[in-house]
Amino acid sequence: MNKIALAIHGGAGTILKSNMTAELEKEYRHALENALQAGWQIIQSGGDSLDAVETSVCKLENNPLFNAGRGSVFTHDGKNEMDASIMDGETHNAGAVALIQNVKNPIKLARLVMEKTEHFLLAGDGANEFAREMKIEFAPDEYFFNDFRYRQLLEAQKENRVQLDHSEKRERRKEKGERQNQKSEIRNQKSEIQNPKSKIQNLIGTVGAVACDSSGNLAAATSTGGMTNKKFGRVGDAPIIGAGTYANNDGCAVSATGWGEYFIRLGVARDISAMMEYRALPVQQAVDAEMNKVKALGADGGVIAMDKFGNIGISFNSEGMYRAYIDVNGKPVVEIYK
Amino acid sequence: MNKIALAIHGGAGTILKSNMTAELEKEYRHALENALQAGWQIIQSGGDSLDAVETSVCKLENNPLFNAGRGSVFTHDGKNEMDASIMDGETHNAGAVALIQNVKNPIKLARLVMEKTEHFLLAGDGANEFAREMKIEFAPDEYFFNDFRYRQLLEAQKENRVQLDHSEKRERRKEKGERQNQKSEIRNQKSEIQNPKSKIQNLIGTVGAVACDSSGNLAAATSTGGMTNKKFGRVGDAPIIGAGTYANNDGCAVSATGWGEYFIRLGVARDISAMMEYRALPVQQAVDAEMNKVKALGADGGVIAMDKFGNIGISFNSEGMYRAYIDVNGKPVVEIYK
Repeated sequence: MNKIALAIHGGAGTILKSNMTAELEKEYRHALENALQAGWQIIQSGGDSLDAVETSVCKLENNPLFNAGRGSVFTHDGKNEMDASIMDGETHNAGAVALIQNVKNPIKLARLVMEKTEHFLLAGDGANEFAREMKIEFAPDEYFFNDFRYRQLLEAQKENRVQLDHSEKRERRKEKGERQNQKSEIRNQKSEIQNPKSKIQNLIGTVGAVACDSSGNLAAATSTGGMTNKKFGRVGDAPIIGAGTYANNDGCAVSATGWGEYFIRLGVARDISAMMEYRALPVQQAVDAEMNKVKALGADGGVIAMDKFGNIGISFNSEGMYRAYIDVNGKPVVEIYK
Repeated sequence: MNKIALAIHGGAGTILKSNMTAELEKEYRHALENALQAGWQIIQSGGDSLDAVETSVCKLENNPLFNAGRGSVFTHDGKNEMDASIMDGETHNAGAVALIQNVKNPIKLARLVMEKTEHFLLAGDGANEFAREMKIEFAPDEYFFNDFRYRQLLEAQKENRVQLDHSEKRERRKEKGERQNQKSEIRNQKSEIQNPKSKIQNLIGTVGAVACDSSGNLAAATSTGGMTNKKFGRVGDAPIIGAGTYANNDGCAVSATGWGEYFIRLGVARDISAMMEYRALPVQQAVDAEMNKVKALGADGGVIAMDKFGNIGISFNSEGMYRAYIDVNGKPVVEIYK
């Protein structure tokens, strides 16, 4: 029988001890431990890694502490638009949903896309129609309402005005007739907006899980409420197979969290597996190498990964990452800071 | 000065000589040559590879012969929902749109996402709102209407009934109480629906371009009208950075066409570049290795790729692929069959 293991995360970012009360830290640790044990029970009793990651992610989605499911942040229009994806390392089947609303557990809908449709990714109105047709559990707006998240929206909307000021400055430069190398200006513009060192970074979060079951099969799942104040149907890395989620028994299972745009650009999850497949890197070295690439772009985030022997790789370059795991020795570990 | 090169494709599938008239073949060849020359003029006069791939793809989008832009196929609801993406191999910036309607040139909207937003992928209603805000050129439904595509929809809707029959058969098996290994059944169910040998395969198409400019910078662009009769906001590989499109000066630029679900599963475009980055494969070997993986899954399709020295790799396992290129020797080549 193969060695089993499970790892989960509840997002990465500026988690400073100075901002954390003992009470809140206890709540986070308790939530992580709960989600971990729920998935663990499944693989420990011989169940599928797919069921384990789905179950752990559901627990995290049901907890308002994390930016996924119930705790999802608000879009610019004050709505909750959620994304999720799941992948089976044995068959390479996958399912993902983007921009779904009022679905209690987006990860369950992603699993239904994988199992009940010929597609991999459903988005927007169509995905919500699919959810209704599947008779999945919906929850009213109040279920997702959270005063803390709403205040985050108001704060982010204030930040946006700052970004608009930058745009106006660029406009004025153009009016003065200064020649601008358009390409490099756009690059600057993007890094201005995306600079993860800005105050907005703590508004990003994702939950995820990776598991290896007793058959040696890997699975990965990721779910998110997206980015506070996002507009225009923005889709991040969480529902993108190869960016936020990937699972391949020949490489590894990965769930990522961080500034999605950079994780899409690097194809983070696929790339970690590729470094293991093509360069035979051990899983911890592969995740460290990938996070160095993320860091080189000036971005923040973290990843959890696992190979088919149950070896766990965890790497992040933010102040903290909510995470928990049970490795092949069977001992649960819950960690928040570096 | 770096050697420049450009390659484009207009989709892959069952392009049988027996179904092709001399007149239609001439039209296809003419359209490919036109799109090729439009992009070529840009890089030949020192322009950016990004502008070259965008321009070539626009030309293909404007031609009703190809399943992109004007020639987009119909969804289940008789609408046109289009996807596109573009990526810069130098900066790794990218932009993509999914499920957009009535935008004349989806690739231009993808470029605007890359340059004007802090995001990489916009989908659905939000993406259409972004298009309106950008004041991009829209076209009425009639512009996209095409009798041939409409007949394809009616035919595909007929095919769907066949698939429903299969589902009923499964239902009956369950009622009889036969034990089914759910996982393997689902796998069979998927391969039944997705089997690219089925009649529906010729309803898939995509256009794309890869280029290397005189600065040695790579770019890739892909655009599609999706899958005939698609439902539920299905998103294929075309707007997925790493699946249908990827560009990395250290690896290669890739545009893929084929059964998107399989291309997402493999992370085709990212994986081709990864094999060049980590195993130092030449571009033609990398695309052949990837298409072997596609074939091993029982799927059809094709890819065009290019490294920063202007070397071109083209590989497909379907009956034909509409394609054209000008390699570093400067001679245009247009091909359709194997």
